Amino acid sequence: MPLSAADIIAQLTALLGANGVIGEAGQMAGYLTEPRKRFHQPASAVTLPASVEQVQAIVRWASENRVGIIPQGGNTGLVGAQVPLRGDEVIVSLARLDRIRSIDVAAGTMTAEAGVILENAHKAAEAEDTIFPLWLGSQGSARVGGLLSSNAGGVNVLAYGNARELTMGVEAVMADGRLYRGLNSLKKDNTGYDLKDLLVGAEGTLGIITAATLKIFPKPEDHETALVSIAGPEAALTLFQLLRERIGSRLNAFEIVPRIGLDMQLRQGMLDRDPSAGTSPWYALIEVSRMRGGTPGALMAAIEAAFTDSLIDNAVFAESLADRTRMWAFREQMSEVQSKEGASIKHDVSVPIAAVPQLIAEGIAAAERLAPGIRPVPFGHMGDGNIHFNFSQPVGAEPKAFMAEFDEKLHEAIYEIVLRLGGSVSAEHGIGQLKIDLLEQVKDPVALDMMRAIKSALDPNGILNPGKMLPR
Amino acid sequence: MPLSAADIIAQLTALLGANGVIGEAGQMAGYLTEPRKRFHQPASAVTLPASVEQVQAIVRWASENRVGIIPQGGNTGLVGAQVPLRGDEVIVSLARLDRIRSIDVAAGTMTAEAGVILENAHKAAEAEDTIFPLWLGSQGSARVGGLLSSNAGGVNVLAYGNARELTMGVEAVMADGRLYRGLNSLKKDNTGYDLKDLLVGAEGTLGIITAATLKIFPKPEDHETALVSIAGPEAALTLFQLLRERIGSRLNAFEIVPRIGLDMQLRQGMLDRDPSAGTSPWYALIEVSRMRGGTPGALMAAIEAAFTDSLIDNAVFAESLADRTRMWAFREQMSEVQSKEGASIKHDVSVPIAAVPQLIAEGIAAAERLAPGIRPVPFGHMGDGNIHFNFSQPVGAEPKAFMAEFDEKLHEAIYEIVLRLGGSVSAEHGIGQLKIDLLEQVKDPVALDMMRAIKSALDPNGILNPGKMLPR
Repeated sequence: MPLSAADIIAQLTALLGANGVIGEAGQMAGYLTEPRKRFHQPASAVTLPASVEQVQAIVRWASENRVGIIPQGGNTGLVGAQVPLRGDEVIVSLARLDRIRSIDVAAGTMTAEAGVILENAHKAAEAEDTIFPLWLGSQGSARVGGLLSSNAGGVNVLAYGNARELTMGVEAVMADGRLYRGLNSLKKDNTGYDLKDLLVGAEGTLGIITAATLKIFPKPEDHETALVSIAGPEAALTLFQLLRERIGSRLNAFEIVPRIGLDMQLRQGMLDRDPSAGTSPWYALIEVSRMRGGTPGALMAAIEAAFTDSLIDNAVFAESLADRTRMWAFREQMSEVQSKEGASIKHDVSVPIAAVPQLIAEGIAAAERLAPGIRPVPFGHMGDGNIHFNFSQPVGAEPKAFMAEFDEKLHEAIYEIVLRLGGSVSAEHGIGQLKIDLLEQVKDPVALDMMRAIKSALDPNGILNPGKMLPR
Repeated sequence: MPLSAADIIAQLTALLGANGVIGEAGQMAGYLTEPRKRFHQPASAVTLPASVEQVQAIVRWASENRVGIIPQGGNTGLVGAQVPLRGDEVIVSLARLDRIRSIDVAAGTMTAEAGVILENAHKAAEAEDTIFPLWLGSQGSARVGGLLSSNAGGVNVLAYGNARELTMGVEAVMADGRLYRGLNSLKKDNTGYDLKDLLVGAEGTLGIITAATLKIFPKPEDHETALVSIAGPEAALTLFQLLRERIGSRLNAFEIVPRIGLDMQLRQGMLDRDPSAGTSPWYALIEVSRMRGGTPGALMAAIEAAFTDSLIDNAVFAESLADRTRMWAFREQMSEVQSKEGASIKHDVSVPIAAVPQLIAEGIAAAERLAPGIRPVPFGHMGDGNIHFNFSQPVGAEPKAFMAEFDEKLHEAIYEIVLRLGGSVSAEHGIGQLKIDLLEQVKDPVALDMMRAIKSALDPNGILNPGKMLPR
């Protein structure tokens, strides 16, 4: 017989103490409401373990009692992986495991607990004249465990990789409560299956990450940042290839934003002034790092070459930190500005880089055929082939009616194009509960069976984030 | 009742045709004898499938008949993963699946079948003015499937990563004969567990890789290569940090070799002339790449700074391709020259980079205590923390007696130091059958249980490379 909510709270309180458990609905609200407000299930309780041992105790208890548990970091995920699905789960917040255990500059590693807020990891690295290059909009609240469990991307993937590539090892509590001790600072270790990469990106369905050894890098001496006015995605692709050839792995970021994104932000008063060189159909935000002793001007020289080739129309270079900050704010505020412009329909998709122009052209055409007046706002990580293919409602439309009529249809249209181009329906946000039906439709059935077999092998009682990521 | 050898050959011949099966012991020899000649088991047959469908047919047959099968590429592995353990297995050579299926320069990808020889992958990339940067001694015979299954490293890991990091997706035949279609050209794809990284490095125990999407990179405009005379590993570590700060990700290689390695090669006539600036206790081979339009001289400037800081004693820069080739030959011939100097005892180990000097100092001291006159030859990938901690027999000792007396004892001594420093007992060569008992002693027991659970889940009948990698 399943435990009652009162039993659950009593037993967890016995395990963790009163300040380790939240059982009152009002106090749980902050753990249940996620950024896009799409999911609205209650939880049996929220736990706040203060140590790895307490996490183990919770998991052992959950295993014995067959209670579903949901690991949660900063609750910034966009697909509902970190909030309840059935309504009877226990949330395990890792927020109190927020210690940087060590930094080793010579080894290029930082060991951080799951609850460390990304911005604090940045600060800890910078205090040692290094960087931890995972950089994304929610870094003020996102936490290491969630970032790893969702294999977060962000704006520096081009040069440094996503969360998986930035992780050398993890420590995790497995479904039976035992601790997998996989922290390490080794660049090379071929002693068995790659369990680290299995746990990273598993959205808490295979184990609960409690700490990770992360890669830190020498702090570049300087950055060169430019906002380039460019005709469209085709020209941006050519420019990207030119920069890859000339600048190689020091090309940190290559982001694109259409004109409408700038118009919206200026209209909504989100920028103190226009960071661009003037009206252009598209903008590319490009950043290059320079190491100590390196020659400045690499980006300037490449942009001049592109200008000579008539590849670009104009460019502004950041001449101060304020300039650079404004350019990045322009890019980072794209999601926020859309929420001020009414309803929006979003797709986090990727295709092989060379197919990005086709994706954007076909996606815009399909959307405009479907919903005349719709405002396409495709932006994002061109250099990774990852476009946030978003749409804002027509000006003046009624948000709810717009969503009711077009949400599903537009998803279908965009995903059809993405799949035809060999792309992914979730480039960086993951599956969670939002895309679970979609995954069943599009994923290789052999891959799905392998995933299910691995899930059953590592979590035979199905207590770890039940119902997430794996269809049925 | 198990099938007889004659039945096995007859049934496989029915499946694959006569030229798809080798059943005669003499003709099998080349598939059974591995580079270090440590393992000497026969096989029931060698199969040479000509297509992915034939690989699937073999696996289905093996599954139905509970026959162990061993995938094999170029048979260059150093731990016996690719040769029989019990003596009744069927070898599945992927050598005939040797097609480069496609190259996409814009996407930065090449899709190669498992049997493609690494050198041919290099040539295919170079024909498109790109590089595939996996580079190691056996590249003339090693094949893609084996390189991925062993997660091969080599000399460019510093800038480009090991085989795992160079692989974007794999296609593999699973234990039930179904095909996992995981090829893709996406830089970002968060739609489920990381099956690619599970199959890479699994030594063929979870599936048979039949093809892979590999990363290719713009060809650098030029390289700067230097052979630096340096006092020892401590100074080399400081030099490495200086280069990382100044050159960042364009530092391709940082290899160290002790004086004895050069002496041996000169004595054995393996170098047409001394590539160094003269007698020195240690040498560091350093290579930096320059992208198109980049300023030359980055390595020269950094070496000058190191010289000013009295960090190094002398340096020679390669001034021609012949110079560069000779410096690399010096590094690459280290294994070969040891085989000409009598018996040797080898350890492929890694530690956090900062611990490399301590590893080398303690390892040499322990070996000299144990076996007076032994010749320590620790060399390799300093920049990855990966040292091939090898020892040559004392001059004049009897090889067999030396091995009998010291092989086990020296392993114990070196691995004790490696583990105390938080290192790995197999940095790049893997486990195979050579290190399986060792793995059981040193690996986190939770990790071992996870590995066993995954193996049972994906290969319930235990037909894929049975007995390899997983203890018991």
